[in-house]
Amino acid sequence: MAIKDGKNGGLANSGSVGLVKTHTMQVAAPPDDLMLDCGRNLGPIQVAYETYGELNPQRDNAILILHALTGDAHAAGYHHSKDAKPGWWDFMIGAGRAFDTNRYFIICTNVLGGCKGTTGPAAINPETNRHFGVTFPMLTLGDMVKVQKLVLDQLGIECLLSLAGGSMGGMQALEWCLRYPEKTRSAIIIASTSKLSPQAIAFHEVGRHAIISDPNWRQGAYYSSEVRPETGLGIARMIGHITYLSEESMNIKFGRRLQNKTEYSYELTREFEVENYLHAQGLRFVQRFDANSYLYITKAMDYYNAAEDWGQGSWERACARVRAKSLVISFTSDWLFPSSQSKEVVKALRQNNKDVSYVEIESASGHDAFLIPSQPLSRVVDSFLDNLYQNQGAA
Amino acid sequence: MAIKDGKNGGLANSGSVGLVKTHTMQVAAPPDDLMLDCGRNLGPIQVAYETYGELNPQRDNAILILHALTGDAHAAGYHHSKDAKPGWWDFMIGAGRAFDTNRYFIICTNVLGGCKGTTGPAAINPETNRHFGVTFPMLTLGDMVKVQKLVLDQLGIECLLSLAGGSMGGMQALEWCLRYPEKTRSAIIIASTSKLSPQAIAFHEVGRHAIISDPNWRQGAYYSSEVRPETGLGIARMIGHITYLSEESMNIKFGRRLQNKTEYSYELTREFEVENYLHAQGLRFVQRFDANSYLYITKAMDYYNAAEDWGQGSWERACARVRAKSLVISFTSDWLFPSSQSKEVVKALRQNNKDVSYVEIESASGHDAFLIPSQPLSRVVDSFLDNLYQNQGAA
Repeated sequence: MAIKDGKNGGLANSGSVGLVKTHTMQVAAPPDDLMLDCGRNLGPIQVAYETYGELNPQRDNAILILHALTGDAHAAGYHHSKDAKPGWWDFMIGAGRAFDTNRYFIICTNVLGGCKGTTGPAAINPETNRHFGVTFPMLTLGDMVKVQKLVLDQLGIECLLSLAGGSMGGMQALEWCLRYPEKTRSAIIIASTSKLSPQAIAFHEVGRHAIISDPNWRQGAYYSSEVRPETGLGIARMIGHITYLSEESMNIKFGRRLQNKTEYSYELTREFEVENYLHAQGLRFVQRFDANSYLYITKAMDYYNAAEDWGQGSWERACARVRAKSLVISFTSDWLFPSSQSKEVVKALRQNNKDVSYVEIESASGHDAFLIPSQPLSRVVDSFLDNLYQNQGAA
Repeated sequence: MAIKDGKNGGLANSGSVGLVKTHTMQVAAPPDDLMLDCGRNLGPIQVAYETYGELNPQRDNAILILHALTGDAHAAGYHHSKDAKPGWWDFMIGAGRAFDTNRYFIICTNVLGGCKGTTGPAAINPETNRHFGVTFPMLTLGDMVKVQKLVLDQLGIECLLSLAGGSMGGMQALEWCLRYPEKTRSAIIIASTSKLSPQAIAFHEVGRHAIISDPNWRQGAYYSSEVRPETGLGIARMIGHITYLSEESMNIKFGRRLQNKTEYSYELTREFEVENYLHAQGLRFVQRFDANSYLYITKAMDYYNAAEDWGQGSWERACARVRAKSLVISFTSDWLFPSSQSKEVVKALRQNNKDVSYVEIESASGHDAFLIPSQPLSRVVDSFLDNLYQNQGAA
């Protein structure tokens, strides 16, 4: 196994994919508009994407990476030589890393409805020459997957060697297995589920309510205004962030430590480190994310119900469609997408005699564990892909 | 054991304490102002309280009930013959109930900083003739307990047979055992902790931030305004409410059911039952609770750290002070004040050879379980008190 260390060492790191660019592709141009699940048509659609590694002549070494709620197409490498941080899954993608760019051709697209180059509520509606805002059609994860398929069509990729994602990314990977079984040789589904729990929906709804209640949201038409619904979006992010960590990781990271002092100030101010951390997370987030995208994408996650969509309510029946060999991974301290939900996915695949492996990784990092460099995660993915690659004789 | 059924049957129910009144008592009148932990003096202080049952001639059958974050002095019975709901712990208090009013004299006070009759930020500052608002001094749970002690002094109660509370109520019960060990014969500490986890502090802080960010909060000086920071307070309540339930109870209560329909409407509206439930909870709450009280009381909870206050950082050392016989109860699905925190309380008491019983009750109801009628809860408390009562020969 080539993976030695999940950590990144900047551009100079031998495994890094180096400097990369986000490209844009147009799909679903009229009259070939995309018919969305809500019944409305959308097109043309701009899609931001990045690729790492080379597509081989047989075109059978492609892996699609699927990002989570607030991710984007920039999964690995650096945009500038002075970038402080690489792409969001850099420790997983590169020469000798789990998604080994010496072997595989890696593609990552920003999802439909996103705000990082792919058409979403912040885009200009060509029919009105104004920002879509809340006139943007409601989306589903199925719609996102349909757009990814159009991108692969243009890239000339008939069948994926694999696809992989955590959280919402894992839900999309599952949707790929169900919607395009013949195009999906394998799938890596991490910290994910076939449907959100009511608790997860509840947390999403409080976040959406905070955004919509922000006076600066202005019914979603804030793009030409000088102020944005940053307070509401910040609150949504703070709530989300608590759910991405675990009680254990918060105890380790912050405990009950005060920020730069040893005694309470007895004022209505933030005093604990954990409070300041959350506010910092909220502030950083509102600078990089669009509030309307947050509304649309969380709603798409809430809607997702693979059993309803593909098995008339039965998850076991839905899984009969799957052809992919799959690897399901969960983390012990993840309480937002708990292991029990991954086990349900696995159980139904097994009941259908599908080729599925399940690994529960011991971790204190909660739901966010899939975004944090760890040898177990790198190794399990590396080994799964290596097996697949050796067995297809594409080496 | 007298407890047959935890459910209430209205005023006609044989066990009900019937019609009750909230009384008000003044304590800490200048020059005997109360010195608060923050260093400021406060007085006079009005305290709202209710009592049920009779104080016996020996004055040794008194039990103090301590409410949680959003509770009040109205723990049992009805204020009017047409009241839709009795006090918040009615199923526990009454003739033949766990807190048996045939035997015990039950007292419940609204906490200092509250908004249900006890002096808090919504009260008029006698020095300025204006509402305190955020000029109200910061509080601690210790301050709340000091006020309760003054109330008992006026009622002529030297020593409590017991005290009992869930969540913040349990934290106050613990504080009583540490601050006034000679006045506390026993304590019932339910779904509680000796200090909040950083996760619980984090949820509190997001709620406070939502309130403070609400333009109608106006630096806390909204009392003479026509509008109140209801949006912010509603968001705080919605967040809180998710943490009071469990994944399991939400699955049972709501699952992924839609509200009055079977298909998604594909609009930016609330569609799941769980979303509507949360909003209804938020709306109901803002009609009965003061936003500033929410800020002050959550902050007091965050501050609480019994080990720091009484054991120089060691919870085991702090417990050496305790004289009360104690009963600690937790609920399996409570993730806000998980059983592990109750077990820590129990462990240190045992290390000091204190008389402590611990019961973990199997429940799907999450943190809220202590507010929901259940035979196990009633029985455990009833049996604990019965033992105590029989053994003191006060019958």
